[in-house]
Amino acid sequence: MKNYNIAVVGATGLVGREMLKILKERNFPIDNLRLFATSRSAGKKINFLGENIIVEEVKEDSFENIDIALFSAGSSAAIETAPLVTKKGGVVIDNSSAFRMDKNIPLVVPEVNGSILTNKETIIANPNCSTIQMVVVLQPLLKKYGLKRLVISTYQAVSGAGKKAVDELLAQSRSFLNNEVIKKKNFNNQIAFNSIPQIDVFLENDYTKEEMKMVNETRKILNENKLAVTATCVRIPVIFGHAESVNVELNQKFDIEELKNELNNFKNIKVVDNPGEEIYPMQTDTEKTDKILVGRIRRDYSQKNSVNLWIAANNLRKGAALNTVQIAEYLIENNLIN
Amino acid sequence: MKNYNIAVVGATGLVGREMLKILKERNFPIDNLRLFATSRSAGKKINFLGENIIVEEVKEDSFENIDIALFSAGSSAAIETAPLVTKKGGVVIDNSSAFRMDKNIPLVVPEVNGSILTNKETIIANPNCSTIQMVVVLQPLLKKYGLKRLVISTYQAVSGAGKKAVDELLAQSRSFLNNEVIKKKNFNNQIAFNSIPQIDVFLENDYTKEEMKMVNETRKILNENKLAVTATCVRIPVIFGHAESVNVELNQKFDIEELKNELNNFKNIKVVDNPGEEIYPMQTDTEKTDKILVGRIRRDYSQKNSVNLWIAANNLRKGAALNTVQIAEYLIENNLIN
Repeated sequence: MKNYNIAVVGATGLVGREMLKILKERNFPIDNLRLFATSRSAGKKINFLGENIIVEEVKEDSFENIDIALFSAGSSAAIETAPLVTKKGGVVIDNSSAFRMDKNIPLVVPEVNGSILTNKETIIANPNCSTIQMVVVLQPLLKKYGLKRLVISTYQAVSGAGKKAVDELLAQSRSFLNNEVIKKKNFNNQIAFNSIPQIDVFLENDYTKEEMKMVNETRKILNENKLAVTATCVRIPVIFGHAESVNVELNQKFDIEELKNELNNFKNIKVVDNPGEEIYPMQTDTEKTDKILVGRIRRDYSQKNSVNLWIAANNLRKGAALNTVQIAEYLIENNLIN
Repeated sequence: MKNYNIAVVGATGLVGREMLKILKERNFPIDNLRLFATSRSAGKKINFLGENIIVEEVKEDSFENIDIALFSAGSSAAIETAPLVTKKGGVVIDNSSAFRMDKNIPLVVPEVNGSILTNKETIIANPNCSTIQMVVVLQPLLKKYGLKRLVISTYQAVSGAGKKAVDELLAQSRSFLNNEVIKKKNFNNQIAFNSIPQIDVFLENDYTKEEMKMVNETRKILNENKLAVTATCVRIPVIFGHAESVNVELNQKFDIEELKNELNNFKNIKVVDNPGEEIYPMQTDTEKTDKILVGRIRRDYSQKNSVNLWIAANNLRKGAALNTVQIAEYLIENNLIN
């Protein structure tokens, strides 16, 4: 079996570190591993399987002989750095929003649309965290019943905004409990013991960028360009795990038990749903699993062919780092990489 | 101006204490004030406008000469105690769910349907917290455009479950920050840094009682028996203030600016909505106001005649204690009480 030269760009961030953990856990076939970050972190050493790897700053010729570069360094770094990889013949799998809506770049959740990948890819985009966990759940429903309209409200963890945001929630919570002044830095507003109905910037249409990612990325990944989608994205004082309340209108009638089976039989979904025992998915459950958890599955009696779902998943793993690594694995398993 | 003999039943709970604050703030025309609670709290003294009032246990003849009894003592206490008030000629305004769906008992939010009240009332029901703040916002939209369907996801504060629940969130948060074991008592699951997609018990149809309250109480208050409503009710780690993401399908087309004006001109609503300045309602804002805050008002492009709203209000005040007092004020102002 062949091993590959891998680069991780943004290796010191929350998602970058999760990528390294996942590469280890899954025995990813690595020959040589190179780690990159901004000048601020360059020179740091990160231990990987017993070896201390020095974090480097990206240079013009950094990606010589790199087969796959996993990026989690934000949009502007991605736009700047991706060409340095591709001109050397490597494939970029990028976690930022820079390339996601580019018609020529595949936006991939392997178990949903991995089959669109070819051996000609140069850049592959990893979708937004809140979109990934939802499209996996929607895919078996699309295949079986067809999708008509989605009404989404999210309950998103602060870790989606990076390590600084996690530190800020913890610091604000501590200040609150000690009756001290609450300091704001990364969030415009207090996030401890509060909800903020804004993730990412506002767009012309009064939706946030996060909300429009859920609309546009969902359509692209599911290859359903006219799917009706509306979203409200909300940051809540949770550290890890995104949850979503999703109201789904299907194209045809369904049996609720059959629908639960369709979900449970799909790859990487776990149905956690027993109202009699008060069992349903929660964000705290997502720390222990790489599966996407779905529960509170119940017919929506307000409209025909409709169902309510509550979806929770690990935003740093399936929502980011894990899906990125799974795309790389898909390329390798399907001989789409040299 | 006449003064009234008032009883507060459940006077030592979170809502009961808020009722007393509100009676003071609003200079409610009180002649004699009597406070009641369970035997555990009986004998305590509560200061009201300089007078120390002793909390009493309810007895058969406790409500002699009481004009209005404000109840916040739970359903079983309400069922047991209400007849003791009414047989003495007093009016009960009850905050529990005991009487809400009784056809012969009005369920009232004064600015929405106060006009159904007559001078013959014996028991008046105060709606559920999450329903009250929503129906006030829906009422002007119903009048102007008609309502077709609501898809609701809530972000509810722990104070809705009483003082013990608040204490538990604070204690769990402290334990979490100190790396100590998190203890569960009132909540089945960890609530600190987590969401729990269950409020109240599960019913036969796999919805929770809280979710069906939003369906049934909304229809009753708005007098729209066929209104299509579906809800997902979620407890989040917030202390005060409920927030709600509400997708509203109207019966006819609308202009978004006109719709905002309709909302802003309605009693007790404040539109807080300026995406350009990143301004929207938050739960922390509800501590400082008795208004219902609505923002993130934007056309839902996924379906015609539809709009998304984000509603936040103080669950202990407008959601409970304030609305109860406002019902009493409505009775007095409209000469519906002797």
